[in-house]
Amino acid sequence: MAPILKDIHMAYNLLKGKKGIIFGALDEKSIAWRTALRCHEEGAQLVLSNAPVALRMGEINKLAETVHAPVIGADVTNMDDLKKLFEETMKHFDGGIDFILHSIGMSLNVRKGKHYTEMDYGFNQKTLDISAISLHRVLRMAWEMDALNYWGSVVALTYIAAQRVFPDYNEMADAKALLESVTRSFGYHYGVRKKVRVNTVSQSPTRTTAGSGVKGFDGFITYAEKMSPLGNADGDQCADFVVTLFSDFTKMVTMQNLFHDGGFSTTGVTESVITQMEK
Amino acid sequence: MAPILKDIHMAYNLLKGKKGIIFGALDEKSIAWRTALRCHEEGAQLVLSNAPVALRMGEINKLAETVHAPVIGADVTNMDDLKKLFEETMKHFDGGIDFILHSIGMSLNVRKGKHYTEMDYGFNQKTLDISAISLHRVLRMAWEMDALNYWGSVVALTYIAAQRVFPDYNEMADAKALLESVTRSFGYHYGVRKKVRVNTVSQSPTRTTAGSGVKGFDGFITYAEKMSPLGNADGDQCADFVVTLFSDFTKMVTMQNLFHDGGFSTTGVTESVITQMEK
Amino acid sequence: MAPILKDIHMAYNLLKGKKGIIFGALDEKSIAWRTALRCHEEGAQLVLSNAPVALRMGEINKLAETVHAPVIGADVTNMDDLKKLFEETMKHFDGGIDFILHSIGMSLNVRKGKHYTEMDYGFNQKTLDISAISLHRVLRMAWEMDALNYWGSVVALTYIAAQRVFPDYNEMADAKALLESVTRSFGYHYGVRKKVRVNTVSQSPTRTTAGSGVKGFDGFITYAEKMSPLGNADGDQCADFVVTLFSDFTKMVTMQNLFHDGGFSTTGVTESVITQMEK
Amino acid sequence: MAPILKDIHMAYNLLKGKKGIIFGALDEKSIAWRTALRCHEEGAQLVLSNAPVALRMGEINKLAETVHAPVIGADVTNMDDLKKLFEETMKHFDGGIDFILHSIGMSLNVRKGKHYTEMDYGFNQKTLDISAISLHRVLRMAWEMDALNYWGSVVALTYIAAQRVFPDYNEMADAKALLESVTRSFGYHYGVRKKVRVNTVSQSPTRTTAGSGVKGFDGFITYAEKMSPLGNADGDQCADFVVTLFSDFTKMVTMQNLFHDGGFSTTGVTESVITQMEK
Repeated sequence: MAPILKDIHMAYNLLKGKKGIIFGALDEKSIAWRTALRCHEEGAQLVLSNAPVALRMGEINKLAETVHAPVIGADVTNMDDLKKLFEETMKHFDGGIDFILHSIGMSLNVRKGKHYTEMDYGFNQKTLDISAISLHRVLRMAWEMDALNYWGSVVALTYIAAQRVFPDYNEMADAKALLESVTRSFGYHYGVRKKVRVNTVSQSPTRTTAGSGVKGFDGFITYAEKMSPLGNADGDQCADFVVTLFSDFTKMVTMQNLFHDGGFSTTGVTESVITQMEK
Repeated sequence: MAPILKDIHMAYNLLKGKKGIIFGALDEKSIAWRTALRCHEEGAQLVLSNAPVALRMGEINKLAETVHAPVIGADVTNMDDLKKLFEETMKHFDGGIDFILHSIGMSLNVRKGKHYTEMDYGFNQKTLDISAISLHRVLRMAWEMDALNYWGSVVALTYIAAQRVFPDYNEMADAKALLESVTRSFGYHYGVRKKVRVNTVSQSPTRTTAGSGVKGFDGFITYAEKMSPLGNADGDQCADFVVTLFSDFTKMVTMQNLFHDGGFSTTGVTESVITQMEK
Repeated sequence: MAPILKDIHMAYNLLKGKKGIIFGALDEKSIAWRTALRCHEEGAQLVLSNAPVALRMGEINKLAETVHAPVIGADVTNMDDLKKLFEETMKHFDGGIDFILHSIGMSLNVRKGKHYTEMDYGFNQKTLDISAISLHRVLRMAWEMDALNYWGSVVALTYIAAQRVFPDYNEMADAKALLESVTRSFGYHYGVRKKVRVNTVSQSPTRTTAGSGVKGFDGFITYAEKMSPLGNADGDQCADFVVTLFSDFTKMVTMQNLFHDGGFSTTGVTESVITQMEK
Repeated sequence: MAPILKDIHMAYNLLKGKKGIIFGALDEKSIAWRTALRCHEEGAQLVLSNAPVALRMGEINKLAETVHAPVIGADVTNMDDLKKLFEETMKHFDGGIDFILHSIGMSLNVRKGKHYTEMDYGFNQKTLDISAISLHRVLRMAWEMDALNYWGSVVALTYIAAQRVFPDYNEMADAKALLESVTRSFGYHYGVRKKVRVNTVSQSPTRTTAGSGVKGFDGFITYAEKMSPLGNADGDQCADFVVTLFSDFTKMVTMQNLFHDGGFSTTGVTESVITQMEK
């Protein structure tokens, strides 16, 4: 039998001396939440940020206590909010920033139950702004304030719907494709200027509070599990992977979309799925 | 010596009996213009459409005369305009539509000389709407009015900047990535419903009036020429390729991004470029 | 209801004046067979070739009669055979060759029922030679004899197992990946020298005599059908697509792997598959 | 100024308790050599292996001393040698193996100065066997002997020539494409059976003794440097990245080709290259 029980994580001090901002920790199921915990265990200093409306839930304060981090609200579609966030963060750290996690996404059309072929274009514009252009806004504010240190690392979370259609994922597929393009485009400029790397991690479908809003999510997560030779990656495993991307071990990886998915992306079919098809 | 002189095109009646809309013919250098000519030669009936502001140039009327097509203005970010366009088109054709060419793109930030790291977000929103979401709008109006015939074919023009960074291409890279995602997303739904296929053609850099607005375009087009084993593809060659995608010979090709680029996309380096690097 | 009945093909003279070699027509289900028929209908002159052992079946003579083509046997792993084939072909055509279809593949380990993890390496070496390096051999003999005309076109058939794992496809996945690489590598050189283009077509799983040897093929073909928005492409549709690649409409497409698969390759999941998973 | 001086590496004990085999350390410039050093620093126990002919150079003994590892010769195209290697390794470790680095490649046609279009097919067969099928042989022997522990990790080094043509890279492009396919194919099976992950790292061109054999290597390495926003990745940086793939932080990454190239793979052109083109 495979020892697939949850690891008790060892700490290696991989991020000792590093300072970073984690966007998007909503509750303890969030990948951002798991990543904040792991970064803290690995020795990083953190600032947590989320949308003001999300902060009102209050959950994030538990995390803040655990990882000894201030919480600074910011609407990522608002440049003034971002400016304030970076100013306060640099003040708190007394200097520059080494890493950023962008785990931000929201589809208004999905929330409102609008089919892809019937989307509201005003909602769509907001979805793209919140879920994709927000990465440009964050990087651009960092760029203007020269907030990121040499060899800094930025990671945004994405999903394989940016490459292949998953019908219920709706307009978020387009938002993720846009996000991955912003990653490459800004990654180029920040790489040339300050050796900063920018990548996306394309994660298995994960049972987060955000994910569970997607219609047909259960049937889909089962399918993904059966289609992945290692099974679906969970939020803690994703956090581990992101830690390596923030560490000094991956300085030359940039402008990439990295699949963290148990092999889903390069599997055409599995015996397990074929068996199910024959039912 | 290679016979690379311009072909005198033969006509094969490849599109006989087919009816289509061509968006984006600005002047005789436009790929849309070249495509309209070729579609006409191959027996198709056409409707030409462009933005009202572009129509005011008046050039398109020459094309309209040559290909015996009405010109119907439409702002592709305006659903009322699109509705009117489809209504008039179906009336003109006395029935459904077989193909659509989407050759629409405009970057306000490029026009205004804004660097990618300093973009105006209002401009960017418009760029995405005009260059990418417009494809959704066109397909969605066709979908609502059931305007496309079974086995219809839709092609949108794109550029490899959607996959790799070309710094001067600026925000259009992100717009093209979004366009390609919309192609897949809507292609799925329209394929399931009516066997309609939707693809993008990723064309060599081409000396069009639109293309020439891009900074450093000359140096870049030379580089692309040296990096393509067959050289850069021109507008007439692109038109030929698009004709095959509108024909009945390609019914099962859908949701693809097809490189029409003389081999640029799969060439890492050429001897010609290496020689230049050693200067 | 969608009019998905088989088309009665019109002929357009798309290949009028063109001369080509078709490798691999075994019986009337073969894609090479269907392609030979379509090329003939479109006005091409043909030479048919297959392995001596396959010729002994005798089926190919029926095709030869229909398309008025000589049959010239050749073991594609034998340079002397290939030399003789090209010599006789050029004599028959009284000149150069415009196109070649490579539809050749055979897995000894699959035939012998060897699992991928237990392959016989001698068999594997033969599989790679027959299925992939054979394309190099054909192109190299054409190159040495300067047998291909300017703007010639070469197509090899492949399968998406070159990109994603389909367990029962076994070592043929590796052979197809090798074939696609040879396509790019030789495509570069032949493009620079004589504007010859070389591409692969990645076809839906097709019920050919060759395909039916693969274990679990039925379950798999059903899965592919459910996973393709347009359904699986059949052999005649593949033939149509290949005709466009041999025609003058696609001169600038080279070193590409072109999916002809009803959208399978860019579909992550369909509602039809999800429904099946919930059973 | 960017602090791009060589780092003095800290050790984090990332591989504490792990045991692995490193194939292909020829001399101190080899990526395998650098990786062995880093794995040792990170707490791993090692066995070094190389071809008998390479061992005769004697350089490897210096490395063996530094990392306290036995050297066990093995011709990777010989199953008996591999069996002996695994037997001795498991005896030395007193148990299973956690990771393997495959850094093995050799092109006989390049060595003999044969152009790609004039390759010797006997040489080519050996090139594929040594450079690509060897990974299958290593994994298959491990599979048969059940030598790899649960959650083991295997990395093979590759190059972007597997996706895009670099003319002087010759037949090695095809070998690398084959290697990457074997990675996916065997990765699937080993993933299902024992949660073992198998990946390739696609590294920047690196001035190793092996690399320097390639014609036009200097012109090319300059081009790659100019085309990578972060510059070319060096051997030590590659070693760092490989360490993360052997660690417990990346358990769900499998069947992937990971670019470790300073952004080369997603950069279409740079201002630095355009400037050079205008000379």
